[in-house]
Amino acid sequence: MNSEIYFADPDKLLDFTRHIFLSAGFNDNKATIAATVLQRADLRGIDSHGVARLPGYVRLIKQGRILPDAETAIVHETPGTALADGNKGIGLVIAGEAMDIAIEKARAVGSGWVAVKNSSHFGVAVAHAEKALKHNMIGFVLTNASPLVSPAGGITPLFGTNPVCVTIPAGKFPPVIIDMSTTVAANGKLEIAQRKGGNIPEGWVQTREGLPSNNPDELKDGGTLLPLGGDLLHSSYKGYALGGWVDIFSGVLSGANFGQWVPPFVSFLDVHREEVGQGLGHFVGAWRIDAFRPVEDFKTSMDIWIEHIKKSKPAPGVERVLIPGEPEAAHEATRMAKGIPLHPKVVEGLSELSKEYKVELAI
Amino acid sequence: MNSEIYFADPDKLLDFTRHIFLSAGFNDNKATIAATVLQRADLRGIDSHGVARLPGYVRLIKQGRILPDAETAIVHETPGTALADGNKGIGLVIAGEAMDIAIEKARAVGSGWVAVKNSSHFGVAVAHAEKALKHNMIGFVLTNASPLVSPAGGITPLFGTNPVCVTIPAGKFPPVIIDMSTTVAANGKLEIAQRKGGNIPEGWVQTREGLPSNNPDELKDGGTLLPLGGDLLHSSYKGYALGGWVDIFSGVLSGANFGQWVPPFVSFLDVHREEVGQGLGHFVGAWRIDAFRPVEDFKTSMDIWIEHIKKSKPAPGVERVLIPGEPEAAHEATRMAKGIPLHPKVVEGLSELSKEYKVELAI
Repeated sequence: MNSEIYFADPDKLLDFTRHIFLSAGFNDNKATIAATVLQRADLRGIDSHGVARLPGYVRLIKQGRILPDAETAIVHETPGTALADGNKGIGLVIAGEAMDIAIEKARAVGSGWVAVKNSSHFGVAVAHAEKALKHNMIGFVLTNASPLVSPAGGITPLFGTNPVCVTIPAGKFPPVIIDMSTTVAANGKLEIAQRKGGNIPEGWVQTREGLPSNNPDELKDGGTLLPLGGDLLHSSYKGYALGGWVDIFSGVLSGANFGQWVPPFVSFLDVHREEVGQGLGHFVGAWRIDAFRPVEDFKTSMDIWIEHIKKSKPAPGVERVLIPGEPEAAHEATRMAKGIPLHPKVVEGLSELSKEYKVELAI
Repeated sequence: MNSEIYFADPDKLLDFTRHIFLSAGFNDNKATIAATVLQRADLRGIDSHGVARLPGYVRLIKQGRILPDAETAIVHETPGTALADGNKGIGLVIAGEAMDIAIEKARAVGSGWVAVKNSSHFGVAVAHAEKALKHNMIGFVLTNASPLVSPAGGITPLFGTNPVCVTIPAGKFPPVIIDMSTTVAANGKLEIAQRKGGNIPEGWVQTREGLPSNNPDELKDGGTLLPLGGDLLHSSYKGYALGGWVDIFSGVLSGANFGQWVPPFVSFLDVHREEVGQGLGHFVGAWRIDAFRPVEDFKTSMDIWIEHIKKSKPAPGVERVLIPGEPEAAHEATRMAKGIPLHPKVVEGLSELSKEYKVELAI
């Protein structure tokens, strides 16, 4: 097998992905949205959440755990909020629909919020949250995920990497984009170390007994990811509290599964025998900037905020202080120009889909 | 000087604090609220934010940096949001007023949000956020604070310890209370080490050159607190992103000062010569639970959520896994019964206020 990285044309890769989703039973609109969300991950350098996951989504569809023809329904609402039922559809599409509802509600009453149940993995949070930006709104997205993370002081995997995403427009500068797991390291970083065959730094994971580990495969032996902070002395209870907050808003407030009951993404793991809710959950929202302050004043201040950070002194060995979202924006510029780098294993997975669905892999 | 800890009767200490605020020019209602907010900190074990700060507030009032007769005004609003001007009043009172507005708006449209400018230090966030609980709402409070924290990869103090507070009701269990600084350690922990004369663990602060330090007095030499995560290898950019988010919402969205321009709490430091906004800022809000899901269903699920964490396995050397807010609730029970422990230096500060304002220190 070829061991070299393949650089895919973003447009062609998007088109391939879209055709696979079409073949798997999605209509044209949904296939386009789902493919675009995966592309957002690949463009922004979050390789673990891009087309690398396409075979995984297809397997869940084949198992009937994701229904391509599901329609999202609002089951309860107020002027500023809604509860949405994803009806076992694909999170990649459902989360964006929920965000559209939140944006409409924000337009009406200043802010809008949608809790979503009965959904599935939604890709990268930023793909949904950034929809708010062009409306001069701040986007906010949370989701729970398969349990791989122990609470602070614990060893049982109870939480997902449960990201917090906030997208904030600026003036002359690009938007501030916060899209972070609430753990020291997300699973994707372990996958990179697994592929490279190296160790990981101490403080990312612990063994199933709660001991320190440098092994990127530790989770396969029952180990857990550590909440942001790492250990109790360095406030891992804060990362745990944040991850718990995300889980409560995504799962408990929506009526989805939460904690240890969140359904796994990987198709070879069964869903929990006793569910406490429906599917996986998200929580999305938007604040209208001019519901607080004139947009132009806000953007002028944001530019001052960004500039004073950019001008601040870097620590020894650091070139300069970065703004949240800046590394991902740099990835996007590079990858739009030079293509999306795909690991041979990812190309192999896409190649199998190509054969199975008779969709030409011209990327 | 007596070096023993004095245990104060909570009611008597509250009454003393209230009388000092009355003497400093507050009306009866505001003096009561301000004293109660300080008491919340002392009861919950956040000693750095309780009556220990009373002399500091009084100094700011004397300097005219806090105006006791200021009235909070709504300067802009939508059905679900408002911008409030604290008019240089005391944050201890203003933040609660803002929360009351948010709760009213949540009652009307499902969620309510108030950005506050021209305020001052508001004490512990939980004192304001927990107001939502009795209305079966989730409370949410952010505030920026004096710059002591460097961004990830930087050495310039640009941010405060910028807390995130979320208060979530449960059923048979006490509410889940998240009230956390976005740094590895808050300044209060350094103050405790300073009083005890010991070192602090590596990873809490860095020197002004960006080198590791165990010195609890490092900030006095131009050192900075580190964002949650600690170093880049352990994702300090996530703590930095969270602290930055808090600063943008508290300062930029409200029109208050932000970043390095946030006015200091200590009266011996001048406010920044070139301000970029008015005073210090907060961002508070509330979501009505029944705007998403019936309250009883939510509380039943919350109890399951809490119970499955309580039953999970602790790590070696840890007695059991705690729920966010549990340690503070335990402090509150103990201190209600046994009194509020006051360090001799704190008693000395109160004693001076007692003499100055001729308010008997019968605590």
